[in-house]
Amino acid sequence: MPDDRLAQQLSFLIEADRLKSVLRRTPLSDNSRLENSAEHSWHLALAALALGEYAPAGVNVARVLQLVVVHDLVEIDAGDTFAYDPAAHATKEERERVAADRLFGVLPPDQRATFRALWDEFEAHATSEARFAHALDRFQALLLNSQSGGGSWATHRVRRSQVLARMAPVQAALPSLWPYVLDVIDRACETGAIVRD
Amino acid sequence: MPDDRLAQQLSFLIEADRLKSVLRRTPLSDNSRLENSAEHSWHLALAALALGEYAPAGVNVARVLQLVVVHDLVEIDAGDTFAYDPAAHATKEERERVAADRLFGVLPPDQRATFRALWDEFEAHATSEARFAHALDRFQALLLNSQSGGGSWATHRVRRSQVLARMAPVQAALPSLWPYVLDVIDRACETGAIVRD
Repeated sequence: MPDDRLAQQLSFLIEADRLKSVLRRTPLSDNSRLENSAEHSWHLALAALALGEYAPAGVNVARVLQLVVVHDLVEIDAGDTFAYDPAAHATKEERERVAADRLFGVLPPDQRATFRALWDEFEAHATSEARFAHALDRFQALLLNSQSGGGSWATHRVRRSQVLARMAPVQAALPSLWPYVLDVIDRACETGAIVRD
Repeated sequence: MPDDRLAQQLSFLIEADRLKSVLRRTPLSDNSRLENSAEHSWHLALAALALGEYAPAGVNVARVLQLVVVHDLVEIDAGDTFAYDPAAHATKEERERVAADRLFGVLPPDQRATFRALWDEFEAHATSEARFAHALDRFQALLLNSQSGGGSWATHRVRRSQVLARMAPVQAALPSLWPYVLDVIDRACETGAIVRD
């Protein structure tokens, strides 16, 4: 049998497996089903590698990978909070804080602190790495909505001003992609996938 | 519209989305469905962070994260090759090489080389990082099979000697976990999930 430390680490990895069952509102590119938060986190890590050259000078992409791998774990308890649901967002911070206490608490104390620090950094937009990770998070959802013919925008009748506000982190931390983002939004308004306002 | 370089990078990320639809033979811990290769890759990245302290001295865990994020992309074209299918393994190398040529070929030439080098390193077990990544890959499947009550072992009537051979990379590059691996295998033999031979 493993010692206590290894047992805690394996319990954490088994708990983490449940993130594969947390569904987001965004569909896969081929619109076959909704994306889950585990595969989304992987896609962000890949995006960090592929788009790292557009990060602001000095961003440590290796740290960005750690942030995106850990950033959604709290959704195992707190669920995915839909981007365009203000009521759910009012309670998001508290729900996710309680989830972080429990989930990272499964780990040995030193790792509990390390993982919690990664999640806190991401949530607080405290560093240029966290801001870049946020920008990727927002951009990846736009990419999938765009590819799938509207995705969560069309399903939930989201307005242009809401999408622009949601994409602000891209303008701030991934500005090279901003013209593309505006172009995607314009085309989605033309097809009616995003409601012009 | 994005310039050619950005367009290639985004095409790659859209292609990569298809990894979420490649199913492995291993079920999730709760046995609700089979795991896909994208969420599996995320789980390996998390395992690299949680179990990095057991890596051989000098292993660069940041590099391990890059390896596991990229390691299964070729399955988009080549499919997941079942661990215990010798016939499929005979053609795996060639199928995956062709897939790597096409998939990484979507990227701009400099990134094509970078991503290909990551995948080649993983495949060749060429570095201690690649060997640690392989060990995690094998161990994670054991963890899910064990948690789900037998998983692909039970479904495909896999024998103890086959599992031991499959887990050899864990013994080599993650030896601290080997007693736990042997214990899991023994218990699975007792329940009949693994066939004793």
